[in-house]
Amino acid sequence: MQHPENNPQYKGLNVNKGIAQPPIINPYLSGRKRRQDYSPDDFADGIRKGNITILSQAVTLLESQKEDHQALAQAVIEKCLPFSGNSVRIGITGVPGAGKSTSIDVFGIHLIKEKNRKLAVLAIDPSSERSKGSILGDKTRMEELSREPNAFIRPSPSAGSLGGVARKTRETIILCEAAGFDTIFVETVGVGQSETAVHSMVDFFLLIQLAGTGDELQGIKRGIMEMADGIIVNKADGNNIDRAKLAAAQYRNALHLFPMPPSGWAPKVLTYSGYFKLGITEIWEMVNEYIAFTKRNGYFDFRRNSQAKYWMYESINEQLKNHFYHTPDMETLLAAKEQQVLNSEISSFKAAKELLDKYFKAE
Amino acid sequence: MQHPENNPQYKGLNVNKGIAQPPIINPYLSGRKRRQDYSPDDFADGIRKGNITILSQAVTLLESQKEDHQALAQAVIEKCLPFSGNSVRIGITGVPGAGKSTSIDVFGIHLIKEKNRKLAVLAIDPSSERSKGSILGDKTRMEELSREPNAFIRPSPSAGSLGGVARKTRETIILCEAAGFDTIFVETVGVGQSETAVHSMVDFFLLIQLAGTGDELQGIKRGIMEMADGIIVNKADGNNIDRAKLAAAQYRNALHLFPMPPSGWAPKVLTYSGYFKLGITEIWEMVNEYIAFTKRNGYFDFRRNSQAKYWMYESINEQLKNHFYHTPDMETLLAAKEQQVLNSEISSFKAAKELLDKYFKAE
Repeated sequence: MQHPENNPQYKGLNVNKGIAQPPIINPYLSGRKRRQDYSPDDFADGIRKGNITILSQAVTLLESQKEDHQALAQAVIEKCLPFSGNSVRIGITGVPGAGKSTSIDVFGIHLIKEKNRKLAVLAIDPSSERSKGSILGDKTRMEELSREPNAFIRPSPSAGSLGGVARKTRETIILCEAAGFDTIFVETVGVGQSETAVHSMVDFFLLIQLAGTGDELQGIKRGIMEMADGIIVNKADGNNIDRAKLAAAQYRNALHLFPMPPSGWAPKVLTYSGYFKLGITEIWEMVNEYIAFTKRNGYFDFRRNSQAKYWMYESINEQLKNHFYHTPDMETLLAAKEQQVLNSEISSFKAAKELLDKYFKAE
Repeated sequence: MQHPENNPQYKGLNVNKGIAQPPIINPYLSGRKRRQDYSPDDFADGIRKGNITILSQAVTLLESQKEDHQALAQAVIEKCLPFSGNSVRIGITGVPGAGKSTSIDVFGIHLIKEKNRKLAVLAIDPSSERSKGSILGDKTRMEELSREPNAFIRPSPSAGSLGGVARKTRETIILCEAAGFDTIFVETVGVGQSETAVHSMVDFFLLIQLAGTGDELQGIKRGIMEMADGIIVNKADGNNIDRAKLAAAQYRNALHLFPMPPSGWAPKVLTYSGYFKLGITEIWEMVNEYIAFTKRNGYFDFRRNSQAKYWMYESINEQLKNHFYHTPDMETLLAAKEQQVLNSEISSFKAAKELLDKYFKAE
């Protein structure tokens, strides 16, 4: 008989030279229960005790398309909700090439080692697909952090509508907080609508920029600069220090042209080097200062409450649209009306009215 | 008997020393027809012939809440649609105090007198109320323009949802174009969501700014600068010229930090003086240059088509929401769920799901 290690069927499995492994027993759960038998209470208890395996499994349920998984996940979230909220949630964006992964790696290690924090790194990237490997929150991109027991790294939920992907990430935040993570990073790509989604679930929005104008900056989407609570210019090292400082001054001047954000906090611009780990402390002093400032003036709670309401209404509106656009034959009808509108045969509003009349009559 | 002119009851009426005036006969319509008897063809013909009275009446119908008025207005729009589109549509915004009214007055007179244009000035201000006098598009604010036969000034449709107000303005554009107006200004206030609505119905978006940082600029809403195709700094006159030029340079620098807009047109920054009528020609050269540029590269038509589609989908989404939020008892249910969400009793998404289940069951 072929040794299991040499059998391609078992390749990569830890068969340990053919010696049977004992089943992995979860210390927080009865050894007899199989994962599919876990109750919402089993999940919630495991999460509350900081069990990363159970947390991961709950997130997987949450991301599943199956209805029974969704129902179970929602019950788990319900049980975790009272224990959520006790963290600082930070959105991080920047164009590809700005050094986001290295920066997050360095920031994370700083927070865990120097500040004793527990960090969850999540991501929103509606374009990612699990099968192709998510481009965000990928453990291999955050080398040091991925070896840290106090870090939980989870790639973006796989491709779907932005609303769906964002919902899953927002619910994952709840689970992570219940598991004791006191710092949450939500990473995104800086090139699409996903920033708005991230902005609506974090306390502080950090924009990573590069020195230099022109090409490097073309990737960042318009409007994102104005959402930032802090802008940090990366690669302020070696020959590049002066350019980075100049860029920071330019961003500072540009920010002066914008009105004060509703938080009452004037966004700051700092320089740092992710690669050489310079200026990292100052960035977290800025974030802490912002949190203290907005907790004092009431904006912190106001923003969190607004976000909770926002997601309720956003979710309603999203589902209303889904229901309409998935009505049988609607796609064909829409295409036809769109053409009539483009030909100036009917107005946009009349086209809409005719489609809605059909929809409500068909109900 | 008291002379009518001295009778306070008739004060201000042109009673012409007591001599009865002949009834005003509309040259385009049979004198026997009363306004309520006009057919869609009567309206469309009158509009097509440039009859301002009939145009005004059609806009009034369009703004009416009555169902039969709406139906008639839609029929008129349908008949006007094939003759619409042949204009340059310009959105104009700026904070209160930037000198918008004076500027529009001066721009309008320049276009009419020097360039032989026919100009319609419309407005979007969801906060305005007819009863209190609309703050926008008010004829008294545009002294010279209001005396021009080639100018049609219409205040913002009265208070309502932004979607509703914007829809009416967009449809008014169609009627004005059919009436031969080849330049359309859509004015807005620079402090709210209305800029996005205006931006989605114009070819060129003009932002009026002032020199100086700080207080003067606090009023302009974040994100608006990035929508502008041109920024013009007002009050570049007398002692203020240097400050205005400095401000323009600052805006120019700030714009360099943003990526190129999808039009491929790098937004320009100019200085001018509305009061002293300086730099006006240059502004319209810029607008013409932009129009020529985007017609050449195809963006002009692309934007118009996108806008037509946008309004169809926007209108569908708006009406789906209206239907949901106006379901009986929904307000009470929403308030209760909102409270549960704020108390962390249920997640935003579960709250939404429960409300939607009720809604679709009740259908």
